Amino acid sequence: MLDTTLRDGAQARGISFSVEDKLKILSALDDLGVSYVEAGNPGHNPKDLEFFKRAASVGLKNARLMAFGSTRRRGISVGEDKNALSLLEAGTEGVCIVGKSWDFHVTDIINAAPDENLAMIGETVGFFTRHGKEVIFEAEHFFDGYRDNPDYALATLKAAEDAGAGCLCLCDTNGGAFPDEISIIIKKITTSFATPVAIHCHNDCGMADANTVIAVCSGASQVQGTFNGFGERCGNARLSTVIPNLQLKKNYSCIPDEKMRNLTTTALLISEIANDGIGDGSPYVGKNAFAHKGGMHADGVEKDERSFEHVNPDAVGNKRQILTSEYSGRTSVLSKTRKLGLPLSKDSPETERIVNRLKELEHQGYQFEAADGSFALVILKQLGKYKPFFELKNYRVLGEQPYEDGKSASALIKIIVDGKTEVTAAEGDGPVNALDKALRKALEVFYPKLMEVHLTDYKVRVLDEKSATASKVRVLIESADGTESWTTVGVSRDIIEASWLALVDSIEYKLLKDGID
Amino acid sequence: MLDTTLRDGAQARGISFSVEDKLKILSALDDLGVSYVEAGNPGHNPKDLEFFKRAASVGLKNARLMAFGSTRRRGISVGEDKNALSLLEAGTEGVCIVGKSWDFHVTDIINAAPDENLAMIGETVGFFTRHGKEVIFEAEHFFDGYRDNPDYALATLKAAEDAGAGCLCLCDTNGGAFPDEISIIIKKITTSFATPVAIHCHNDCGMADANTVIAVCSGASQVQGTFNGFGERCGNARLSTVIPNLQLKKNYSCIPDEKMRNLTTTALLISEIANDGIGDGSPYVGKNAFAHKGGMHADGVEKDERSFEHVNPDAVGNKRQILTSEYSGRTSVLSKTRKLGLPLSKDSPETERIVNRLKELEHQGYQFEAADGSFALVILKQLGKYKPFFELKNYRVLGEQPYEDGKSASALIKIIVDGKTEVTAAEGDGPVNALDKALRKALEVFYPKLMEVHLTDYKVRVLDEKSATASKVRVLIESADGTESWTTVGVSRDIIEASWLALVDSIEYKLLKDGID
Repeated sequence: MLDTTLRDGAQARGISFSVEDKLKILSALDDLGVSYVEAGNPGHNPKDLEFFKRAASVGLKNARLMAFGSTRRRGISVGEDKNALSLLEAGTEGVCIVGKSWDFHVTDIINAAPDENLAMIGETVGFFTRHGKEVIFEAEHFFDGYRDNPDYALATLKAAEDAGAGCLCLCDTNGGAFPDEISIIIKKITTSFATPVAIHCHNDCGMADANTVIAVCSGASQVQGTFNGFGERCGNARLSTVIPNLQLKKNYSCIPDEKMRNLTTTALLISEIANDGIGDGSPYVGKNAFAHKGGMHADGVEKDERSFEHVNPDAVGNKRQILTSEYSGRTSVLSKTRKLGLPLSKDSPETERIVNRLKELEHQGYQFEAADGSFALVILKQLGKYKPFFELKNYRVLGEQPYEDGKSASALIKIIVDGKTEVTAAEGDGPVNALDKALRKALEVFYPKLMEVHLTDYKVRVLDEKSATASKVRVLIESADGTESWTTVGVSRDIIEASWLALVDSIEYKLLKDGID
Repeated sequence: MLDTTLRDGAQARGISFSVEDKLKILSALDDLGVSYVEAGNPGHNPKDLEFFKRAASVGLKNARLMAFGSTRRRGISVGEDKNALSLLEAGTEGVCIVGKSWDFHVTDIINAAPDENLAMIGETVGFFTRHGKEVIFEAEHFFDGYRDNPDYALATLKAAEDAGAGCLCLCDTNGGAFPDEISIIIKKITTSFATPVAIHCHNDCGMADANTVIAVCSGASQVQGTFNGFGERCGNARLSTVIPNLQLKKNYSCIPDEKMRNLTTTALLISEIANDGIGDGSPYVGKNAFAHKGGMHADGVEKDERSFEHVNPDAVGNKRQILTSEYSGRTSVLSKTRKLGLPLSKDSPETERIVNRLKELEHQGYQFEAADGSFALVILKQLGKYKPFFELKNYRVLGEQPYEDGKSASALIKIIVDGKTEVTAAEGDGPVNALDKALRKALEVFYPKLMEVHLTDYKVRVLDEKSATASKVRVLIESADGTESWTTVGVSRDIIEASWLALVDSIEYKLLKDGID
């Protein structure tokens, strides 16, 4: 396994690592047991040279650090090439040297003669092996080159092998190859060359992970990729997918078995540092990788996990989730009622009533997958276990322009609790914020525990966008009180009303769970 | 090609389609030339039955509409099965019938005897063929079943074929299969059965797209997937990847050649309706699929596109992008000023001023990629070519609960045009709708042409969700006047103010472009 998140991954749009970021990712990959980390191009990027200097003090336990560079420039010796010298300066045990394997690139892009390119490969690889470095030769555009001119593509590998390269890496640089041809070509190369062969795939046809797995099954002994698939254009092969595929399904050993459970947290950490999601639907490590929404599916995994899971989520440190929705029906209702301490049977009329009510609400635009708080309230209401904590007499929210004191909205509210009326008002940044403050102010008189609650997230989604400003909106509010967090939902054509519904659910859920009545 | 975005895609977390949404997606897939659209399970979901009724009036040009359901329940005849009857009620030309092909599922999940399951398959398929429906048999967990008990898995296909199924679809329901075994199994099935074979893959190992392509190359004649890969857990095979792979790389015909350029816009449209991104790195149709981040790659594609592109972006309706932000910032300003008939040079102080103003606004949360109308106004303001069409004295928006006559909000507005004051008011569904109506009512007195303008889209995005109800929001409004459509943007902590800013831009853009002053 060679991870190149820190070099190829950094070529993705929107990704830019600081030296600190790179050191953190290096440590995480080393902890996981990745055997090579290819971490930068010191000739192109002065930040990378600083990184390599600081990385020397990290004390790697498993990973060998590699610096990346190209074959020497035309017309000079390697010893005169600034980029080659900065690779030496990086002081790593090994280097990855990229060279052209597609004759079209040699003649049309770098304007070199085919033989000159072979000399550039041989001399550059030789230079670094003489300096005691482990050299991986990166055969750029190998598969395109092999398709156009196989003899020349093979000659580039031969030049690197003869000069002492420790590994020949076949790159699908443009991401245009398919598993069937990858399999044939890898078989041919691994039988023709004594040097170990690696595979490096890009995802422009959506084939990077498949090509990588198939290459290993066809004889490649090393894999290059980026942990979360970050990379130029459509990205690189994702090691977070390739590692479990090879280790759990194809019986290869990539990292120590006991580290397999750290796959998900490592993916999340790298994603956090890169400030770029791994994709909720990412195989094995994504948030949705073991999330079941279909009724039959949810039902099946409760009976036997094998029924709708290709692997146990524990094996990669991920978690199973049963989502609530019109598709999931009874099973998720039963699992929620069990959690609420109100177990129901699958065929009871109460279960049916709850399922029907959920369908009705979903038809109106509600969604309960994320809104656990509102979901619990729907159940309690259907079971007759719910009693309101207050009665709203009325509210009025005023937004104005121009406005004073930096607050563009104010709200007035009148509520009744146990026969006692409370009238109050508040100002805020916009109508929803003002109403939120007024409601809390009024209720805290009766329920001081509400002072513990803070809103931690607020989302608005327009449902039927084509109705423009008269569109229905769905508001999701996440609340927390220091020990727990919960999400509630409201739907209306009026954003104030939708927010109001979600706010009320949030407060009632808090009071119910604390057993205040 | 069978697209199941509307059924399997809707099983993805966070996706929930209204009947309107489903009709729009159906039309888009039909326009593209997709041959089958599998669109819902009327037995499970009352919304789906409404959809099928309305779909009958869409007038499909290419697609055949399919309804989805299971084999009959145990112990009853198909004619007594409610789900089967609602499939008939859907009134589609064809149905997809899912049945168990893995004996473990038969015995352990649905607690049926193996022979009983075969009878359920045969009787259900037979029922629908007798009713004149085209039947696709969906062999659930076929590959897992074939691995465990090939004879039984084959027997389930045989039961469906004997009962008249028009197609046998082999499903990798848990997404655990790899291209090598898919190839072997598909070859075996396509030579053993006379009925056409389809492939339906899930992406739990990251193999869905590869497995699908390899299945076709091994003899499968139909593909099932979802256009953007939406689906349960890690999703389904992505037709937006599979179609160009097969049609541009493997010489199969999936959709009419002249429609290939609509792949990207179709993917964006479906993503927009689903309110879920397609992933910037998605093969072929993603925003980054042909984005080159400077350096050697940008240089290479300038010399010859083949150097770093596996296919021409035009072929799928996508665009090449060179990501050198400073340069591209100026480029888009220059191209816009040219369109406005106000050509600037790259190094002029005006260009610099506009680029700086855009950066300032972007820092505040504005985004101009989609907001062409507001972008034009920023340019005109910086060039001193802008003069306001009206002056706002004040507005007041009132939202209340309870409310009368079905309108929860009202707005009062005072504006001045050429020294003349207009005061008016309107009611609406929520504060933004009320203010929108009041503003138009006031302005139409002076500018009757505004009666041509309709708002066609309204979007809200919460920018710093963690500030909860005091979060900044960005509002995008799309307007149209019968000959043109334009989008404008506003940002504020107050949703009314953010909407106001976008509304004013929309109106000013209309008046400017019509040359009214």
